[in-house]
Amino acid sequence: MAASSVRCQGVVQVPGHSLFSVPYQRCNLRLRTKISYQGCSLEDSRATGIRIGRGIQAPSVSTESVSVLDALTVVNENEYIGYGCLLDDNTFRERFVIRFSEVSTRGRISLETLASLLQEAATNHVLKMEYGFSPGKNMNGNITVTTRMHIEVDKYPEWRDLVEIDTWFQPEGKNSVRRDWIVKNVRTGESIAFATSTWVLMNSQTRRLCKMTEDLWQELEPHMRSPAKWAMSEERRQESSTKIPKLGEEAALRIEGVVASERDCDMNQHVNNVRYLSWMIETVPEEVKRSHEVSKITIEYRQEANQEECVDIVADIEKTENIDTKHFTHLTKKSSDGKEINRGRTVWRPSQ
Amino acid sequence: MAASSVRCQGVVQVPGHSLFSVPYQRCNLRLRTKISYQGCSLEDSRATGIRIGRGIQAPSVSTESVSVLDALTVVNENEYIGYGCLLDDNTFRERFVIRFSEVSTRGRISLETLASLLQEAATNHVLKMEYGFSPGKNMNGNITVTTRMHIEVDKYPEWRDLVEIDTWFQPEGKNSVRRDWIVKNVRTGESIAFATSTWVLMNSQTRRLCKMTEDLWQELEPHMRSPAKWAMSEERRQESSTKIPKLGEEAALRIEGVVASERDCDMNQHVNNVRYLSWMIETVPEEVKRSHEVSKITIEYRQEANQEECVDIVADIEKTENIDTKHFTHLTKKSSDGKEINRGRTVWRPSQ
Repeated sequence: MAASSVRCQGVVQVPGHSLFSVPYQRCNLRLRTKISYQGCSLEDSRATGIRIGRGIQAPSVSTESVSVLDALTVVNENEYIGYGCLLDDNTFRERFVIRFSEVSTRGRISLETLASLLQEAATNHVLKMEYGFSPGKNMNGNITVTTRMHIEVDKYPEWRDLVEIDTWFQPEGKNSVRRDWIVKNVRTGESIAFATSTWVLMNSQTRRLCKMTEDLWQELEPHMRSPAKWAMSEERRQESSTKIPKLGEEAALRIEGVVASERDCDMNQHVNNVRYLSWMIETVPEEVKRSHEVSKITIEYRQEANQEECVDIVADIEKTENIDTKHFTHLTKKSSDGKEINRGRTVWRPSQ
Repeated sequence: MAASSVRCQGVVQVPGHSLFSVPYQRCNLRLRTKISYQGCSLEDSRATGIRIGRGIQAPSVSTESVSVLDALTVVNENEYIGYGCLLDDNTFRERFVIRFSEVSTRGRISLETLASLLQEAATNHVLKMEYGFSPGKNMNGNITVTTRMHIEVDKYPEWRDLVEIDTWFQPEGKNSVRRDWIVKNVRTGESIAFATSTWVLMNSQTRRLCKMTEDLWQELEPHMRSPAKWAMSEERRQESSTKIPKLGEEAALRIEGVVASERDCDMNQHVNNVRYLSWMIETVPEEVKRSHEVSKITIEYRQEANQEECVDIVADIEKTENIDTKHFTHLTKKSSDGKEINRGRTVWRPSQ
């Protein structure tokens, strides 16, 4: 039967009813078809009838009676919370077209823009799990914070490239979660960047780290990637795990007295994780930035900086045997008491 | 016949053949269906057969033989140059989901981010016309530059809002083109922002403005919006056309000696138009920015600033009878000779 070769998943909008005002009651329409969306393998389900927001129950639809669609407009379900989707193994996949405004004079995106897209995919993943709307019931008012982020970029995407970001999370020890990312350039088919991060639980009142309970692990378990997987090869992981020394007063590259503005902060009222990467990169001499590009960046977060906080950002070049690449050690600290906010390392290779 | 109720437009990808490497030869598959995409009215065509990149000619497809799709993957045609589409009246429509990284602590986007999305839609419109790939044959090596931009924002979109940007262009006098934009919040259905800009032709060698030829007008004509339309009401247009005075040495708000970095510039090697708006806003006192938001901005571009150019950005508050809003006059000039780069005006209302 011809109609049975149609497969899609969408939100059905009945004229006169705004679905956007009833996101929790959004209705699903599932039919089998060969039309793919965003390269994702959509849920392989049969038509199950249409549940419609605001309590309206439409006649059920079978694969034999597609004609009911005539009165309706199908709007893709992802349309208003990004375009990502969950794969069967709990990987979240989202695609981004590299915008004109995201590329610099070289026609390629910067590390910060890439990091921002990683953050975007991670945020939309959490939203997709509906954690963003209703925080896990076993969180007990605690929040998750990241303690480490490591990104390796083999090749920066260019203007108009379509990048596909896969991200997932899984346990790392008893009290932390690891989130990984792989970035693929859809045009070339190559995996061009890899990232990993560690997340722990923090008491939102005392701002101290706390342990994860068995109940919370059980709540997260259905959302974890299965089977477990690393974004980065064993070799990359080993190489990136070298200890980052804490810079002292002798650090040669210094930007002091930076006041965190509203634009440096995100909705959590803290300096955004990506902004710290920008600050690290700002300390690197212009001549290095002109001839080189970041191939690897590691950042270890120690504490948060608030809006209007005054910080010092310092860096120093590391001695390495590799003559092609330049390595820098970074430290961001509070100007008031010198307490460490984060430390990091960047590796720069000649621009491609 | 059930299959005839299927309608889509896409790029057909044959396993083993990368369509992304042959964008000009990309093949079209058109079938009639009720599945809409991005709210656009897609071309109402019948199946016309499949032309495939790299010279492969697949068997033609009729609406009765959808089964040929089994061997193929349909990838949306818009997927790698943004998600916009052209409507019948030559309006270009593109939708953007407001990203986490695009909102500040207030949970809403900034004027600069909105301006950046307007620029993105305009750029993708030009690409869609294939002007980006092969500049108009009657351009004679000239380029288009903008001389004025005016934006009014009634309501800033929030995180996760889906905004729909409509943009089009049409003649403005004998030697310039006007590009307009309307921004709609899809969630609320409201039109939330309006913008207009003027574009002229410049000789890319001498950097002097030049006249548009009859041949060029004829070449552009099929891409102009028909019927002509203003994004802004007569009242808004009149109110925004007040002359902007040139600030002198007495301007109270000054940021001097700013060096345009690589990150301030775009692929044209000049400071990006949106960056000038950021610079204007930076001069406004923090206490105004904390309690107010930009409702209107006008900028008149006089000349370009290059990478590593040193500029002075000055502003002063205007006396107005309106006690609710604050008006500022702005001027950006070269530090070396004081020559004007652009001037502008911002109107600030209490934050909503």
